[in-house]
Amino acid sequence: MDIREMGLAAKSAAVCLSALSTDVKNAALQAIAVGLRTHANELFEANRKDLSAAEAAGLDTPLLKRLRFDEKKLGEVLAGLESLQALPEPTGVTQKATELDEGLELFRVSCPIGVVGIIFESRPDALVQISTLCLKSGNAVLLKGGSEALNTNRALAKVILEASTAAGAPDGWLHLLETRADVNEMLQQDDLIDLIVPRGSNAFVRYIMDHTRIAVMGHSDGICHTYVDDAADIPMAVRLVVDSKTQYVSVCNATEHLLVHRNIAAAFLPAVVEALRAKHVRLLGDDASRAIVPDLEPASDDEWDKEYLDYILSIKLVDSLEEAAAHINRHGSGHTDMIATQDAAHAARFVTIVDSADVFWNASTRFADGFRYGLGAEVGIATGKLHARGPVGLEGLCTYKYVLCGHGQIVADYAEGRSHFTHKMLDKRWEEDFQN
Amino acid sequence: MDIREMGLAAKSAAVCLSALSTDVKNAALQAIAVGLRTHANELFEANRKDLSAAEAAGLDTPLLKRLRFDEKKLGEVLAGLESLQALPEPTGVTQKATELDEGLELFRVSCPIGVVGIIFESRPDALVQISTLCLKSGNAVLLKGGSEALNTNRALAKVILEASTAAGAPDGWLHLLETRADVNEMLQQDDLIDLIVPRGSNAFVRYIMDHTRIAVMGHSDGICHTYVDDAADIPMAVRLVVDSKTQYVSVCNATEHLLVHRNIAAAFLPAVVEALRAKHVRLLGDDASRAIVPDLEPASDDEWDKEYLDYILSIKLVDSLEEAAAHINRHGSGHTDMIATQDAAHAARFVTIVDSADVFWNASTRFADGFRYGLGAEVGIATGKLHARGPVGLEGLCTYKYVLCGHGQIVADYAEGRSHFTHKMLDKRWEEDFQN
Repeated sequence: MDIREMGLAAKSAAVCLSALSTDVKNAALQAIAVGLRTHANELFEANRKDLSAAEAAGLDTPLLKRLRFDEKKLGEVLAGLESLQALPEPTGVTQKATELDEGLELFRVSCPIGVVGIIFESRPDALVQISTLCLKSGNAVLLKGGSEALNTNRALAKVILEASTAAGAPDGWLHLLETRADVNEMLQQDDLIDLIVPRGSNAFVRYIMDHTRIAVMGHSDGICHTYVDDAADIPMAVRLVVDSKTQYVSVCNATEHLLVHRNIAAAFLPAVVEALRAKHVRLLGDDASRAIVPDLEPASDDEWDKEYLDYILSIKLVDSLEEAAAHINRHGSGHTDMIATQDAAHAARFVTIVDSADVFWNASTRFADGFRYGLGAEVGIATGKLHARGPVGLEGLCTYKYVLCGHGQIVADYAEGRSHFTHKMLDKRWEEDFQN
Repeated sequence: MDIREMGLAAKSAAVCLSALSTDVKNAALQAIAVGLRTHANELFEANRKDLSAAEAAGLDTPLLKRLRFDEKKLGEVLAGLESLQALPEPTGVTQKATELDEGLELFRVSCPIGVVGIIFESRPDALVQISTLCLKSGNAVLLKGGSEALNTNRALAKVILEASTAAGAPDGWLHLLETRADVNEMLQQDDLIDLIVPRGSNAFVRYIMDHTRIAVMGHSDGICHTYVDDAADIPMAVRLVVDSKTQYVSVCNATEHLLVHRNIAAAFLPAVVEALRAKHVRLLGDDASRAIVPDLEPASDDEWDKEYLDYILSIKLVDSLEEAAAHINRHGSGHTDMIATQDAAHAARFVTIVDSADVFWNASTRFADGFRYGLGAEVGIATGKLHARGPVGLEGLCTYKYVLCGHGQIVADYAEGRSHFTHKMLDKRWEEDFQN
């Protein structure tokens, strides 16, 4: 089957998915869990092939760790499937109901987006998470995983597709793409695919955006900041900076730049520098911070636009909260930015004027994550401002439609003054109008 | 000021707008109303210049009618400003509140998108509607109206900007672009502008989409359908078709294609044809419908992808509701599609599987409109599936951010099992955590 045919099959499956009941969707998720458990040995064997090839090719230990699909990963994936079944049905939800006139009722109702294309890294457990989020939200999906995981992905996709269709999911709701050429082909199908979610490097996301007319939801960068306000609690701020920077350095929600209010710098900087050096963080600073801690490396002018993903932090002093926010809005990537302060008014102003998907007060930037937010798994973190922002779970895979129920009303009667709109909010679900 | 400078000024104004209170925004709207009333004569005079030039250039009567800004239009605009002030504040609204752990609370809070670029037709009243929707939703805006209205637009923009800034709106929140070159320049500012809303022809919207990296929200086409089900009430269905087709033919929510269930065709077609011919609608039909009404013009194969915007309707028979939905999903533009039926189960199936922004049951397609929906004015109708769909009012000009309020919590404590997430839904507004 070529990519065009996959897209066509997915589009027709999407129609069936949109009409699937919650029970059938949950039964399909349960069947997937059973299937994965039943075929565990085949899955592990496929994964061992991928692992040996990757070892032979000299892949880094962290990459090998992500590539591994073993009993532990299977256990996590099955736990995830269980909590996904427990999450509320995301489609068919009445978001707003308005009486336009007597017997003319308008409902805004959530519904699946349709067909989604997702490109993700060499992490087989991500294939399970992403595909089952799509199933629960009623979306058909074209998946392309990292090529290092191809054998595992093939085995997983086969189990997921067989188990779910046996439980009532439509044929063709999931397709696995295998090559870059497949991806380029997919990017051309703007009449069939409604959304592309690219996970990967900044350059990769840019490439995708520049090569398709399809809407793209992704994050371009994770340039996150911690701002230590003049009203910060110093020991708390030190703990927050250390965690935000070092708890896991190679991820998008790690803090890369530290902004410090000038009035607290003399007290705060020596303490934070000591704590960060104990964690082997390389520290750079602007002239003002180097005046206080002279052995910081000098930060160049282009330092503030960098995403390190490493044990490196740049420090800059600012004269005000407003200067900190302006710096963040200019140099940040709209991902996650935090203020450490004991002053609630300062915090309120910061979260209002900082234009990022996640704005935190006295909590580590590392909390920006779908699982920690309680959204279930996430398909990705969006730094664009439209549709979904921050960690994207089931809700971000849905859109809405307006459903209008009438009894033969025509516009001419309203245009010519024979009828009049009432525009009353209703407390009613759309289904109620569709009961015979 | 060149376009780049306008964008920079708008971006910095957007920060101030995001922190503006509802009272100040409403006071600014009120000041605009007073300003427009006070300067009415200057506005009318500017409009007379535009009108004479347009008459001299031989513009059509409908276009001249749209270009006119007179006492009547001013009255409508002032009424609109009054209802806009009465609409609830769209930003700062807590959409969801979750306790992640004791003393660690996550809020999803609505906020302005930022800087919006809107390109609209030669309708001066649209300038007032659009700019004030942006002000109420806290967005800075770059506006480009049709060139025929340039004098009126200049005069309106001047009054709006002066009145609103005197009442507390930030300088630079509104900029008027004057040429196509300005628009092309604006499309390049993807680091400053968050959203482009193009209003105009399909070709124009495509052009915009192909020439910018900025997110575009617009509608590509209005290919709307009415499907007359085998369980339709025939007199009602006739009324609905006549209104949907003829109440105003040159607009995007007019029905262009009529699908009729084969079982009702013999009874329904003669009746609807008679009613439509009385309104001088030119009628085309497929072979099956011409077998019933032989004097329909034959419809060619490419008829079904056309948007007529005229007194023309194509008729096609279908064997089932599913065939009707499949036809609509393939040939429609995802705008507005209606089923006429007395069977609630048929209606529920139709609104579920038809993949359009607006899906109607026994109500004219012409109801798809922000004013009729009670949204206040609209910036446009979106046929894309992401962010906002259908008529877009204040809510579509907003996005959200996640606000996390902690007391120094770090991720290491959760990753290493010393702390645990509770993930409880809270009934709480975000402001409550920010009160000293």
